[in-house]
Amino acid sequence: MAVGTPLAFVVFVDGFLLLMLAAAMAVPMIVDAASGSRDWRSFAIAAAITAYVGGMMTLSSRGRGGQLDRRTGYMLTVSSWLAVAVFASLPFILSPLAATVTDAFFETMSGLTTTGSTVFVGLDHFPPGLLLWRSMLQWFGGAGIVVTAIVLLPRLSVGGMQLFRAESSDISDKPVARLYQLARLTLTTYVALSVACTIAYGLAGMNAFDAVNHAMTTISTGGYSTKDASIGYYNSVSIEIVGIVFMIAGALPLVWWARLADQRARAFTQERQVPAFLAILVAGIVMATAWNVIAGHMTFEHALRLSAFNVTSVLTDTGYATTDYSAWGSFAVGLFFILLLVGGCAGSTAGGIKVFRWQILLAGVGGHLKRMLSPHRVLTTRYGNRVVDDAMIGAVRNFFFMYLLTFLVLSLGVMTTGLDFVSSTSAVAEAMANAGPGLGPLVGPAANFAALATPAKWLLALAMLLGRLELSTVYVMLLSAYWLA
Amino acid sequence: MAVGTPLAFVVFVDGFLLLMLAAAMAVPMIVDAASGSRDWRSFAIAAAITAYVGGMMTLSSRGRGGQLDRRTGYMLTVSSWLAVAVFASLPFILSPLAATVTDAFFETMSGLTTTGSTVFVGLDHFPPGLLLWRSMLQWFGGAGIVVTAIVLLPRLSVGGMQLFRAESSDISDKPVARLYQLARLTLTTYVALSVACTIAYGLAGMNAFDAVNHAMTTISTGGYSTKDASIGYYNSVSIEIVGIVFMIAGALPLVWWARLADQRARAFTQERQVPAFLAILVAGIVMATAWNVIAGHMTFEHALRLSAFNVTSVLTDTGYATTDYSAWGSFAVGLFFILLLVGGCAGSTAGGIKVFRWQILLAGVGGHLKRMLSPHRVLTTRYGNRVVDDAMIGAVRNFFFMYLLTFLVLSLGVMTTGLDFVSSTSAVAEAMANAGPGLGPLVGPAANFAALATPAKWLLALAMLLGRLELSTVYVMLLSAYWLA
Repeated sequence: MAVGTPLAFVVFVDGFLLLMLAAAMAVPMIVDAASGSRDWRSFAIAAAITAYVGGMMTLSSRGRGGQLDRRTGYMLTVSSWLAVAVFASLPFILSPLAATVTDAFFETMSGLTTTGSTVFVGLDHFPPGLLLWRSMLQWFGGAGIVVTAIVLLPRLSVGGMQLFRAESSDISDKPVARLYQLARLTLTTYVALSVACTIAYGLAGMNAFDAVNHAMTTISTGGYSTKDASIGYYNSVSIEIVGIVFMIAGALPLVWWARLADQRARAFTQERQVPAFLAILVAGIVMATAWNVIAGHMTFEHALRLSAFNVTSVLTDTGYATTDYSAWGSFAVGLFFILLLVGGCAGSTAGGIKVFRWQILLAGVGGHLKRMLSPHRVLTTRYGNRVVDDAMIGAVRNFFFMYLLTFLVLSLGVMTTGLDFVSSTSAVAEAMANAGPGLGPLVGPAANFAALATPAKWLLALAMLLGRLELSTVYVMLLSAYWLA
Repeated sequence: MAVGTPLAFVVFVDGFLLLMLAAAMAVPMIVDAASGSRDWRSFAIAAAITAYVGGMMTLSSRGRGGQLDRRTGYMLTVSSWLAVAVFASLPFILSPLAATVTDAFFETMSGLTTTGSTVFVGLDHFPPGLLLWRSMLQWFGGAGIVVTAIVLLPRLSVGGMQLFRAESSDISDKPVARLYQLARLTLTTYVALSVACTIAYGLAGMNAFDAVNHAMTTISTGGYSTKDASIGYYNSVSIEIVGIVFMIAGALPLVWWARLADQRARAFTQERQVPAFLAILVAGIVMATAWNVIAGHMTFEHALRLSAFNVTSVLTDTGYATTDYSAWGSFAVGLFFILLLVGGCAGSTAGGIKVFRWQILLAGVGGHLKRMLSPHRVLTTRYGNRVVDDAMIGAVRNFFFMYLLTFLVLSLGVMTTGLDFVSSTSAVAEAMANAGPGLGPLVGPAANFAALATPAKWLLALAMLLGRLELSTVYVMLLSAYWLA
């Protein structure tokens, strides 16, 4: 790749994001200072470093940017996530926690990718600034992924995301204006949902600080909590209901919400995801409830309450828990494994393989079998208002293969650290799906990731990034052709 | 489907196969009678029933068969495997073992599909006829799958097997003669390899009966043994080396061997599988050996001996064991899981996803990423002497998705019986790959499947059939279009 205008554009955007990150660090700094915690200084130092680097980057590259070609698009996506993750981890390193670089990077990547796995114990006694910083990472990460999913991934044809491309958005520049409008509308919706969620949590009994934090990590389907016991700490049905409602809100396409406010967003909506997602959610809750009543000998009410919350949390890849569901027996464990692979809707903050891909894969199976019967038959697969051509089905099938291959290789890598089979596979699966807790006593919902070996933490952080950026965005940069052409 | 000539053809072939099956039952009958076991009578009764049904079927449909269209091809494949499995299970039910229908069907399906999972304990004290029958099931099943893979699957375009289709085999009838010739040549090779294996086991120290039995279950990569302790019973390096050599022989395409005898077979050979398979085998042995030396504190010689035999057994999906490798720790368990999914070469008796599919999937990833970079670039993927077009890549990718989806659904089904997560997933994976033992104390190499719940056994038998017939062959018959058109 020739070093020139496109690279300058990448440096400019990354630098600009770092400046915004530095500004964001002022919020926990002020909260710490106001609450009398001396930890405000770590945010001040981190903000200074981040602002300095971001400033240098923007100044050195200002006014030289422009056209976003594909090559630049991939680099922009990957480099911006990495740059923000590196600098956003500074407060953890500089704080009195004195987290190792590994732990700080793991926690930050887990936050930004809205995964929600944590290496920290004793959250209940953390300075408020750090708790807020963790929540903000998820909230920013959620906004970031939605914008990436709306603006960049469809144009870059990542894993079938071209399905959500507005017509002819590649050629004229009018669609860029439309995309900008759409991104703004989506972010406004994101803020509105967050405010509504904060109020709802407050009405359900949380104090203001907890409500703000949990709202940010609910809408982003992130799952960080201010309590070691997660939402289970409150033991409140109304808080759980608020959580369920807003986890679902976060796992639906934000454009779908935006459309309620502005009809112009309709053009970008692929609504077929929504009923499928809701149907899977209901099916999951029914199956888990039935299993808990039959095999777990729970009362129906108790089973329903636990199943509704935790199934929603797993399917939306949020990662909250109100109990250690990995102790529910193998059927529940298997069900949760499948649900987290299914994931939420594209264009939402949720992770996983995503509902629309499963729909296209299943349609592909049907088409394939029909063609085996009548090889010369012409079949047209539609998805909403789009025709799904062979290239798009091919992209989604290829995504599925890359997803499973990545899962197998990373799992094997984590196993070299001696972690057991179930912990390794579930930790990688949940990291790639940006879900949060794995299964079992070591990485399950009742545990945390502190005890894992250092290489395992780096592999899991990699899994989070790969999952969040839908694999190909990163893998394309491994091609020699990317760098040489 | 209209009942008429094509159905009559299916009935005729199935009936003919049952007649051959009845004739085969004479062999264990004679062996039992000669060795003074009274169990010869169960074979006599089973043979009579099988011959009667088979005779009725052939007589009623004789002279009405003919053209093998696709629709008939699928029914022929599925119905013949099911018919043979049902009648071949009679000796287990009628014998003094008085096996349940479930156990008898499980054992027979496991035999015919060359899976090798067993529900029987105390093999060392079984009447010789039953032991021989188990081995014969695997040997016939191995021959059956090779003929199916050469003659039927490529014509039916199952899971990318069209890669192995001889040019224009669909249109003229000359290729049918060529296919017949090829099948005969392949079966001759199969017999020759079996004889060579028998002699080698004899020279390595097995008695004649054990040598014949193990040769039949080695070449077919089936894995049934006449001993509860499998090959580990002999504790002999030379027997293990013979096993390794002939398991590899069975996992290579039989056409590849046939080509050594007759150059005309070369046209059907896709040799690119062979070096890849051998490279994976060596890599697997090296990794397992290194892991056992480093983490298991074994001596190098001991680690190499155990790894070479058990890795070969898993990769070829045979299912012999010389130790309980599921106790080697999570990395080895994960490695074995991946190896059994890889499987052997297409056109061999081995199972799994098969090496050529992984090669095409990986080539597909490369092509996809390159196209993400340059959308209008024209790429041609080649495999050996064939051009792999998008339709073939699509078929293989679709196979991969169906494989994983089937695995997930069947695993979840087995989990409803209460079997734990690792046992359930590994049992289904090994059944689908026609490999044999799962992992862990309940279904691992040191255990057997007797203790599983009845529904779990039926689900696993289904998994074996689906895996053996490469999924689509069965799934296509679930389309309403199959029956209505």
